[in-house]
Amino acid sequence: MKKVILIVVLLFTIIFGKAQNADSIHIRKIFSEALTDYTSYEQLKYLCKQIGGRIAGSKQSLEAVYWAKAEMEKLGADTVYLQECKVRSWNRGAPELSYVKSKSSEKLKFQVCALGGSVGTPIAGITAGIVEVKSIDELQKLGADKIKGKVVFFNRPANPEYYNTFMAYGRAADQRVIGASMAASYGAVASVTRSLTVIKHKYPHTGILRYIDSLPKIPAFAISTTDADVLSGLIIKDSSIQIFLKSSCSESEEVISYNVIAELKGCENPEEYIVVGGHLDAWDNGEGAHDDGAGIVQTMEVLRIYKKIGFRPKHTLRFIAFMDEEMAQRGARKYAESVALKNEKHIAALESDVGAFLPLGFSYVGGDEVAKRFEQWKPILDDYGLNYFLKGYSGVDISFLRDRNFPLFGLMCDSQRYFNYQHAATDVFESVFHRELQLGSASMTALIYLIDNYGF
Amino acid sequence: MKKVILIVVLLFTIIFGKAQNADSIHIRKIFSEALTDYTSYEQLKYLCKQIGGRIAGSKQSLEAVYWAKAEMEKLGADTVYLQECKVRSWNRGAPELSYVKSKSSEKLKFQVCALGGSVGTPIAGITAGIVEVKSIDELQKLGADKIKGKVVFFNRPANPEYYNTFMAYGRAADQRVIGASMAASYGAVASVTRSLTVIKHKYPHTGILRYIDSLPKIPAFAISTTDADVLSGLIIKDSSIQIFLKSSCSESEEVISYNVIAELKGCENPEEYIVVGGHLDAWDNGEGAHDDGAGIVQTMEVLRIYKKIGFRPKHTLRFIAFMDEEMAQRGARKYAESVALKNEKHIAALESDVGAFLPLGFSYVGGDEVAKRFEQWKPILDDYGLNYFLKGYSGVDISFLRDRNFPLFGLMCDSQRYFNYQHAATDVFESVFHRELQLGSASMTALIYLIDNYGF
Repeated sequence: MKKVILIVVLLFTIIFGKAQNADSIHIRKIFSEALTDYTSYEQLKYLCKQIGGRIAGSKQSLEAVYWAKAEMEKLGADTVYLQECKVRSWNRGAPELSYVKSKSSEKLKFQVCALGGSVGTPIAGITAGIVEVKSIDELQKLGADKIKGKVVFFNRPANPEYYNTFMAYGRAADQRVIGASMAASYGAVASVTRSLTVIKHKYPHTGILRYIDSLPKIPAFAISTTDADVLSGLIIKDSSIQIFLKSSCSESEEVISYNVIAELKGCENPEEYIVVGGHLDAWDNGEGAHDDGAGIVQTMEVLRIYKKIGFRPKHTLRFIAFMDEEMAQRGARKYAESVALKNEKHIAALESDVGAFLPLGFSYVGGDEVAKRFEQWKPILDDYGLNYFLKGYSGVDISFLRDRNFPLFGLMCDSQRYFNYQHAATDVFESVFHRELQLGSASMTALIYLIDNYGF
Repeated sequence: MKKVILIVVLLFTIIFGKAQNADSIHIRKIFSEALTDYTSYEQLKYLCKQIGGRIAGSKQSLEAVYWAKAEMEKLGADTVYLQECKVRSWNRGAPELSYVKSKSSEKLKFQVCALGGSVGTPIAGITAGIVEVKSIDELQKLGADKIKGKVVFFNRPANPEYYNTFMAYGRAADQRVIGASMAASYGAVASVTRSLTVIKHKYPHTGILRYIDSLPKIPAFAISTTDADVLSGLIIKDSSIQIFLKSSCSESEEVISYNVIAELKGCENPEEYIVVGGHLDAWDNGEGAHDDGAGIVQTMEVLRIYKKIGFRPKHTLRFIAFMDEEMAQRGARKYAESVALKNEKHIAALESDVGAFLPLGFSYVGGDEVAKRFEQWKPILDDYGLNYFLKGYSGVDISFLRDRNFPLFGLMCDSQRYFNYQHAATDVFESVFHRELQLGSASMTALIYLIDNYGF
């Protein structure tokens, strides 16, 4: 009996050792291919420079849909198709204006932009007194007496002391998301929110706001961090200053848009799916390079690398360019609905939506079986700087699949520079480094390769 | 007896637990201070924009010396002094020229620059046939027959397939360092080396070359990676093309320069030193922002943070701006000599010279006692992304202290973008991100704090 056990152990060691070795070789190939190829980088350049900002419902977002479909076809996917969804049709209108008048009547202009989904001001703009608060709590303490007829200025910074800048962002985001409605509940006429970035620069950062249905919709703006400091200084000097704000946002009827979906058929279990995706829409004030052009071209790069190296997946790989992550995740909801409707079996889903920065590992939503796999894969992945495997998060779009009982993954990258760009005019192609983009693609391809091979 | 042991264990646990906790709190303070302060970033801006490139022996390098001394004094060091050393006095001269003439006699110009320490061409320049090789081996196989009277073009790329770009650099660097002399040994009239960077761009990267004394000194150039590809293509089409090269480098008598040294006196062991340093000199074709302005202002930032937080070190901290890392490490040699002469006891030395990028940990030269300490410190340092502790390297300048029997450390950062800048015109202030610079400074301060507290 002992001998049998010994032989089994030996055999297992040999087979597992060989598998490990074959995996290492395959993953080395994946990284070599990614680091020496520029297809994806050129795709990103096209998406940023020829299409540009592409918020869901815009002409540009549809251009991006047809472009993504054509690119996925060119890369040799087995099938490429569009999945219809309805999206909001919000339009920023003309560039926003804001200033205060000094005593000598000179205008001191501010860099502002409307928050996504905001209503516009009256054509003549709004001129009103301004009340600075650091939190919604503080707003509530001031109450209607102090707020009515005023512009509320939310000025709590994203705290740069956090090592992970997503923490800084997360802890300041309430001001942007619900600030306007909270201010409106006390009779404010508009809101201005300090941009959600840990750095000081002159660019305002937009992003979605959520109006509470039962409350009046007031125009909402983001102001650059440097101008937020200037404005705060002016208020300290003279609390009676009046601010001028003008925007011409508008929203029309919902329109048709699409997820773009490509498939590479599995050779063993074609009816079981592994999803890889990013989001195709991007805010209109930048080029959506990091957020999330990177995720889109990385998704396509997984496909390209599979074709180039000649890997055949066991399960069907589904590459998805989701529509409308920024406004209302209509594409993601549609995909999840369709999966439920058809009761399609999924093995895993992976999203890239944290910018093209140095990959550090993967976040995941899943059980112990995932943690166990990562323990096994660690020695291979560590060669490529992937050594954080953090439970609790994956990505916004694939999160709609969370009740379907398969693990969800997010590419995890260094966060130090992300909020220099997110939702701002600085999010342009030039801010993306080829190697960081490609290391992300290679990390994603490696994970998909391992999941396809070993499952959970 | 058992009871006694239990009590000892308990006491130890409490004391060690408290120490761990106090360390965590101190290190949190260090990172908070670094991430919210801009002194160091402004210093780097001044060094880059007001002084600029500053190769040892240049007027700018002396300006940098006096600037660094004044800054360290302003930061409140206990003493600041200059340590004299002799340095070479090499001068690039006028911008270099290179082209080939097409059949229609049009000039196709190349982006080239002289390698550091190169002799110049004759005033009329050099026009000669060109032989491309991928290695010194290949050169040797061709021999004098094929090489005599020609320009040798070393075109083996820094291989982008390496994850760590220092590996790519290291495996291609022989062409730059000894290529010219090796080519001269077969009668070549000049050498042109493909720039040591993993990316394709139009900027040539300089760097030191070493002439072999017994061989003729021929002019040596670096060519940008994109132009190296163009040149290689031209040679394939017509191996008889002639290249024109012109430089006007010159070298005069050695001159006096200085290390800048500041000290913060230890309160328990003032005669025992911990060194922190970077190098003040930088190649003349850029601003020396990453290489190594960053290391200089990070060194000064360790001092600033200590003063600001009110830490008193147990051992004397010595902050050193080394002179002449790029050419001949004369400053580093001088410091090591002085330490030997005075038989000064050192506890450790830490160098920052890998650019202002995301810190990932520390490299070190030392024994098991260092590995053990890192095991203890790991839980604290991991909160700041520091989890690689790699034995075998520290830094060029402090390496001259290696025989003195104390551990040497190098700040280890992400390498993906370093060679976009190193030794090229792209190494400018704008390529440095505040948070990455400051995380480096904070990581260095944290390590110094732990070493000062626990020793080895």
